[in-house]
Amino acid sequence: MNVYLDNAATTPLDSEVFEAMKPFLLENYGNPSSIHSHGRKVRSAIEYARKQVAELLNASTGEIFFTSGGTEADNTIICCGIESHGLTHAITSRIEHHAVLHTMENLEKQGKIKLSYVELDEKGHIIPEHLEELLKNNPRTMVSLMHANNEIGNINDLELISSICRKYDAIFHSDTVQTVGHYKHDLKALDIHSISGAAHKFHGPKGAGFLYVRKDSKIAPYIHGGAQERNMRGGTENVYGIIGLAKALEIAYRDMNNHQKYIQGLKDRMISKLRSGIEGVGFNGDSENPEKSLYTVLNVCLPQSNDNDMLLFTLDINGISASGGSACSSGASTGSHVLTGIKADPTRGAVRFSFSKYNKPEEIDYTVEKLSEFYKKEEA
Amino acid sequence: MNVYLDNAATTPLDSEVFEAMKPFLLENYGNPSSIHSHGRKVRSAIEYARKQVAELLNASTGEIFFTSGGTEADNTIICCGIESHGLTHAITSRIEHHAVLHTMENLEKQGKIKLSYVELDEKGHIIPEHLEELLKNNPRTMVSLMHANNEIGNINDLELISSICRKYDAIFHSDTVQTVGHYKHDLKALDIHSISGAAHKFHGPKGAGFLYVRKDSKIAPYIHGGAQERNMRGGTENVYGIIGLAKALEIAYRDMNNHQKYIQGLKDRMISKLRSGIEGVGFNGDSENPEKSLYTVLNVCLPQSNDNDMLLFTLDINGISASGGSACSSGASTGSHVLTGIKADPTRGAVRFSFSKYNKPEEIDYTVEKLSEFYKKEEA
Repeated sequence: MNVYLDNAATTPLDSEVFEAMKPFLLENYGNPSSIHSHGRKVRSAIEYARKQVAELLNASTGEIFFTSGGTEADNTIICCGIESHGLTHAITSRIEHHAVLHTMENLEKQGKIKLSYVELDEKGHIIPEHLEELLKNNPRTMVSLMHANNEIGNINDLELISSICRKYDAIFHSDTVQTVGHYKHDLKALDIHSISGAAHKFHGPKGAGFLYVRKDSKIAPYIHGGAQERNMRGGTENVYGIIGLAKALEIAYRDMNNHQKYIQGLKDRMISKLRSGIEGVGFNGDSENPEKSLYTVLNVCLPQSNDNDMLLFTLDINGISASGGSACSSGASTGSHVLTGIKADPTRGAVRFSFSKYNKPEEIDYTVEKLSEFYKKEEA
Repeated sequence: MNVYLDNAATTPLDSEVFEAMKPFLLENYGNPSSIHSHGRKVRSAIEYARKQVAELLNASTGEIFFTSGGTEADNTIICCGIESHGLTHAITSRIEHHAVLHTMENLEKQGKIKLSYVELDEKGHIIPEHLEELLKNNPRTMVSLMHANNEIGNINDLELISSICRKYDAIFHSDTVQTVGHYKHDLKALDIHSISGAAHKFHGPKGAGFLYVRKDSKIAPYIHGGAQERNMRGGTENVYGIIGLAKALEIAYRDMNNHQKYIQGLKDRMISKLRSGIEGVGFNGDSENPEKSLYTVLNVCLPQSNDNDMLLFTLDINGISASGGSACSSGASTGSHVLTGIKADPTRGAVRFSFSKYNKPEEIDYTVEKLSEFYKKEEA
């Protein structure tokens, strides 16, 4: 059996999305910056995509900027937001995605900001009182805290964080890469400066993302060049990527309720099967909590074993693709900075399973079966 | 008749390229950073693409970094090259692409560099003696001069510039976006620090480009995040874009001699038809010179007329797509900075026609016919 349970790393492209992209790969090849008919046709498709994305997120079209992905979106808002607003301090947490963490660390290294980390409780949730304390002592701050963690699935309360940021006049950015297309965002209701998204996390194409920036905030471009994206991002647009992103978001919103119910069902099934199949199994962070974690992610804390190095390898030879940390950094030889950040027990195995609409209950059963066998062999 | 003569803005995707990309849009959806089978399959395809690109350019695989396009590649090398090498001065010309020009101007505005412009002769070629003079007076310099100009087609002598840069120990980057895939580059023979390329300029996909950086030079990443591209560029790779870029370059090198001969034939045909069809026609820059200009670009200098504002519009309603400047900036309301830079007569109309392998001789004839009619009506 071939089982793909690494959907937080990337999701398969939806065939409806592929069909939407195809005409822009084949017939409609104009450069959207060209003013002739070949260009205008593509320009209007991009602007329609922008309108679609804006409407779904309840934002204005002028607030949506397309990028090459979530990482570029985070880099843009962090570097240019801090510079354009003259900020001198930033707050993040030790379990943010590297797109935020490394960008912040680099600005600190360059002496452009002082960087503070908000403390986390034992489940890996931020401690709001500590955020408030940091803000009290540091004016002119950017706060960058993700909506949901890509490794352990913990969900931050954006409204709470936003209200604290408002109180101290801080700029609040959230990396929402794991929630866009899986949860509804209402950007008129939520008091937030900026969010970022990546199409390939919700069955859209790789290489396409967006940055939402509230319209009352002016920031400089990160990538300089032509006048694309209303002077906010130079470079010929990834047209098919943008069309695919909008289509994928449209599908996500259309099917969201069933999607959420179905996938939460798969996650619940896995939790229950794991509990009965493997003695001492646990869940990292708040991964088990349906209210405070992504329905798409389950981070399993497995028993101690000398063979835990072989865990992902064993799953892999059984045709099961899962992750031992964020796929974004699994090329690196170091362990997960998220599990380190929440002080998870390093002697216990950890696997992140992440689900999509294409997974089936029997894939969950098969995976738990293989995992149980691995630990039974251990005991024997 | 529907005639696309704006190939310097972007080229149609080759159907062979689309076929190469398709499996990575449909079946092979893994994240290349994932270590399981879904990821490894895609990782190996990306590394194969990198090897292909490196071999075609006679570079090492470790010298090729994939980006979201030529603009990001130029931004990366300019910002990070200057920072990592501790440079304090840069030289460029007033007719560079905005990806270079605006990036340099921004660094100057931030006080990070002093910026100098090399002078141009009456045909728009750089004056080597002036470059030498600037280098003599400014140590620790980055020189960024494009291989060929995207609007007027002028080709710079990279070997000559490179030898001058070597003499003064300057770092030499060239934006080769208009020549990659149209001319052969031998990066072991050419003494250059870095070049940039964009797939969509040679029948590859939009949203994919590359940066070549000589392996003895270490530079920091511009986009921070995961460990992708050997820590040189964070963000999940645009997999289909990368596969498409490599395939397009492979096709370009395979067919280059015939390609060049065929397109130069179209350009020659247009020059000759224009000369006989429109009195007083000329060519901007060195666009007419087959030795010193791109065979893909012809920038036509048309008679004075009160109706020149209507020129591109008239072509457009006749089904002809051409450009009145670089498409990259045609969304802007200002005129062409290149034509301004070479002191072209602003009272005369200017149209850039740019050709590809998909153009046919009868399209050239039709275009010249429509253009002649426009000026005949004028006279009448």
